[in-house]
Amino acid sequence: MKHFINEKHDMVTEAIDGTIAASGGKLTRLDGYPHIRVVVRSDWDKSKVALVSGGGSGHEPAHAGFVGEGMLTAAVCGDVFASPSVDAVLAAILAVTGPAGCLLIVKNYTGDRLNFGLAAERARAFGHKVSVVIVDDDVALPNLPQARGLAGTLFVHKIVGAMAEGGANLEACTIAAKRVIAGSRSIGLSLDTCSVPGSLKEDRIPFGMAELGLGIHGEAGVAQVASAGAADAIAKMIEALVADMPRTPHVALINNLGGASCLEMAILTNNLLGSEIGQYIRLVVGPSAMMTALDMHGFSISLCELADGDEGFLKAPAKVTGWPGCNSVTTPAVLPLPDGLTPIRAPASAHAPTREFLTDCCKVLIAAENDLNLLDAKSGDGDTGSTLAGAARALIDAMDRLPLADHTQLYRAIGLELSQTMGGSSGVLLAIFFAAAGDASSSGMTMRDALMAGLDRMRQIGGANPGDRTMVDALLPALNALSAGLPQAAAAARKGAKYTATLTSAKAGRASYINAEQLEGHIDPGAEAVARLFEHLAS
Amino acid sequence: MKHFINEKHDMVTEAIDGTIAASGGKLTRLDGYPHIRVVVRSDWDKSKVALVSGGGSGHEPAHAGFVGEGMLTAAVCGDVFASPSVDAVLAAILAVTGPAGCLLIVKNYTGDRLNFGLAAERARAFGHKVSVVIVDDDVALPNLPQARGLAGTLFVHKIVGAMAEGGANLEACTIAAKRVIAGSRSIGLSLDTCSVPGSLKEDRIPFGMAELGLGIHGEAGVAQVASAGAADAIAKMIEALVADMPRTPHVALINNLGGASCLEMAILTNNLLGSEIGQYIRLVVGPSAMMTALDMHGFSISLCELADGDEGFLKAPAKVTGWPGCNSVTTPAVLPLPDGLTPIRAPASAHAPTREFLTDCCKVLIAAENDLNLLDAKSGDGDTGSTLAGAARALIDAMDRLPLADHTQLYRAIGLELSQTMGGSSGVLLAIFFAAAGDASSSGMTMRDALMAGLDRMRQIGGANPGDRTMVDALLPALNALSAGLPQAAAAARKGAKYTATLTSAKAGRASYINAEQLEGHIDPGAEAVARLFEHLAS
Repeated sequence: MKHFINEKHDMVTEAIDGTIAASGGKLTRLDGYPHIRVVVRSDWDKSKVALVSGGGSGHEPAHAGFVGEGMLTAAVCGDVFASPSVDAVLAAILAVTGPAGCLLIVKNYTGDRLNFGLAAERARAFGHKVSVVIVDDDVALPNLPQARGLAGTLFVHKIVGAMAEGGANLEACTIAAKRVIAGSRSIGLSLDTCSVPGSLKEDRIPFGMAELGLGIHGEAGVAQVASAGAADAIAKMIEALVADMPRTPHVALINNLGGASCLEMAILTNNLLGSEIGQYIRLVVGPSAMMTALDMHGFSISLCELADGDEGFLKAPAKVTGWPGCNSVTTPAVLPLPDGLTPIRAPASAHAPTREFLTDCCKVLIAAENDLNLLDAKSGDGDTGSTLAGAARALIDAMDRLPLADHTQLYRAIGLELSQTMGGSSGVLLAIFFAAAGDASSSGMTMRDALMAGLDRMRQIGGANPGDRTMVDALLPALNALSAGLPQAAAAARKGAKYTATLTSAKAGRASYINAEQLEGHIDPGAEAVARLFEHLAS
Repeated sequence: MKHFINEKHDMVTEAIDGTIAASGGKLTRLDGYPHIRVVVRSDWDKSKVALVSGGGSGHEPAHAGFVGEGMLTAAVCGDVFASPSVDAVLAAILAVTGPAGCLLIVKNYTGDRLNFGLAAERARAFGHKVSVVIVDDDVALPNLPQARGLAGTLFVHKIVGAMAEGGANLEACTIAAKRVIAGSRSIGLSLDTCSVPGSLKEDRIPFGMAELGLGIHGEAGVAQVASAGAADAIAKMIEALVADMPRTPHVALINNLGGASCLEMAILTNNLLGSEIGQYIRLVVGPSAMMTALDMHGFSISLCELADGDEGFLKAPAKVTGWPGCNSVTTPAVLPLPDGLTPIRAPASAHAPTREFLTDCCKVLIAAENDLNLLDAKSGDGDTGSTLAGAARALIDAMDRLPLADHTQLYRAIGLELSQTMGGSSGVLLAIFFAAAGDASSSGMTMRDALMAGLDRMRQIGGANPGDRTMVDALLPALNALSAGLPQAAAAARKGAKYTATLTSAKAGRASYINAEQLEGHIDPGAEAVARLFEHLAS
């Protein structure tokens, strides 16, 4: 199965049940499954104008995701891409309409118009006040007398929803809805068709092309155009949007048709707000998936002229899951980079014994290069020896600029050198080791304790524990034994290194991908390096 | 181009700019493009513990979408699926850390651990208090020592974010973060791999299969399993999740990996909450795209054990764009269907002249069947005559149950009969015509005015204006002329019908898809039917 559904025949009711269960008690539904699928605000008391919308499913979160305080009172859900029945619409109207009346917000598709329209008549026969508005915000075809209803519908839900919540009467809500519709324009563009669960996908759009001016049901767009990136897509859509657009403040709604990644949607947002009409976009809703065509890899842009009060209605809180909020478009000041990115080098200082000690250690590692590479070839990519030797050579070269007389600063300086000259994870880990040791040393710890603090930090970041077949298996026992003397530390390091040859499962580092037979009998190269260092120092 | 990007090299900075521009001024960034990409709360005053997270991009809205009051202080954004540099992380820490210190929330990937870890050391060298926690919530491989960090990371962002916002100190935040991580478990499942903009897509998953236990970078999952629907997917994931899960109250986070439709996500939510572990899920976050793998057609489930206070932290408001809120899981009572769905039929009553008039009209339509079909064949599908004749026959059959003596009720009763017996749009439109006429009649209007009110409503719903080449072109002039007498009405209807033959562009109904040459010279069949009715009545 290429979709996360169970049975095609009840996928819509299952989706509604999931939406209700995750709504925190804010939503419920009317009885009447499977034919009547009406999602209702659970806290509705009929004291205000009710707003009812709906249509085919497959456009989630539209419309159930917009039901709640401040937006819709009820949503009537048809089958995927099919209008709900007259009875379902009528049930919604009768369930939520009180003396203040009911506004039906209908997208301009024949089935929706007819079924909502007839349901409205039936409800009126019961004495209910019912208004109907038809949303036709699509500008794909300038001469089409019956423009489709697209995501501009959400402007009506939000603006009139906030008005109704505030107590506006049915006439005021109807007038406002018609005004918002008249001021709304939308257009969609997609790189691919959508796939309806249980049906074959129509592969209509060739590679490298996009469809401009499409609806939300997988129907073909007005034209296939070359797909030349995000800014180009925005430019082509703006051409259709600006035709009769007044140069006044607008709100833009940036709608993911379902299958565009959030990364792409953010890029498109950047391109829209930076476009020639960006200066007229004062408010923005999204980017977000609001009125989808299932999994369509496309998006739509809706614009609406702002009248007095609209900003407040658009920004008013709405207790629904589908509305991403409405923000003012701003260009906040970029913050300057903080000081400290260029590490402060402690002044170089001479100290002959330290220089000799360090150089000595480096030479041990340089001498061990081939041996360590051979060991690493058993469990890794055979470069541990060269990596360490390279770092040692670089450190010898750097000796003149190191603060050799200030041991606390020296740890940090070695860490810095290693992070800049030693590649791979081990370079970063050793940099962390020395930096943390410097930290500890600056707070007054002894050399052994400072190195132990460095090891702790390196283990936290590297994730290596004793027995994981890493240098930790030699370094930890060596540092533990160091208070007893260097020979004891060297013996402990060697014992730890030998121990790694008995470990047949590495738990950190690259050797964790190697199987037991290949590892057995070979000492971990990092542990071997530690053992050689301590053995040399003890001798 | 198969993605909405412009240049691959700056797609991440473009996406960040879009996110900031649409954030309503809540977000800004550090200078330092292209290497340093750090998104920061614009209202940050360093008075509280700073929370810094980040990692590779391609997981949007993670992590920039979680920056804001109540969650993260800053997000460090790497290239797509690549760790940010040490310098970028350090810049973030230095920019936001005050005396209260900074908590780094790092997903368990080697690059992130190392780069965040070293940056932490560098920041500590400046005297900053910095804690690091590593998130490893993936349970795909029970024996993997280095479990990956997945969407469970968001539990840390939210719970610790609310604590920090409330003034908790760094130690308390770090302890809580570690507790949340220890109590979190996640697993992912996908029907397809993701496609990285600018790279070829790896088609790894055969049709009918799913990958279980995958990460968020397109890497292969632990196993390929048969894809047998939503409930089956949930069952397979639960198997991995429940292994060592305590049977205590949990919060579940349902994360869209990017390409699953909202419809599917709602179904999956329903299946998860209805599963064997549903009873342990007290709170739910989502379904929503929170930690994506670009456009991957999959999802992940994250669970976290709830401790005292967590519910409050999870439900606390957060001024960020990526967090969908956290709700209690509820099963609200289903509302009974309202009365009135079964239309109330007015009692039948006899009235010989009305019966004769109605029957007569029906016979006109029956007699016109073939002629009207022929006309319709020129502009539609050739069935207008049969549709009208069928309705007329049904109305004759229904005569005995109609309220013939009560004309107001009769309109509504005819509307009801037509909506039940006459197929297609025209049936609904005529039902609306008669229902609205009945409405008008019941408020005291004359027959002509009532019919005109019906026509108005039918036009509103059907969208047909004079000149659109529909029955309106005959009916409207006929009703206008009716006050002068039936012969005048008949003449006006005929004139209107003839006028439709001159209209070469239909603007409503099926004929709107026909070209001018095919329409010219042919009367619209609906208009012809109206003309014949009035001519018969006048004769």
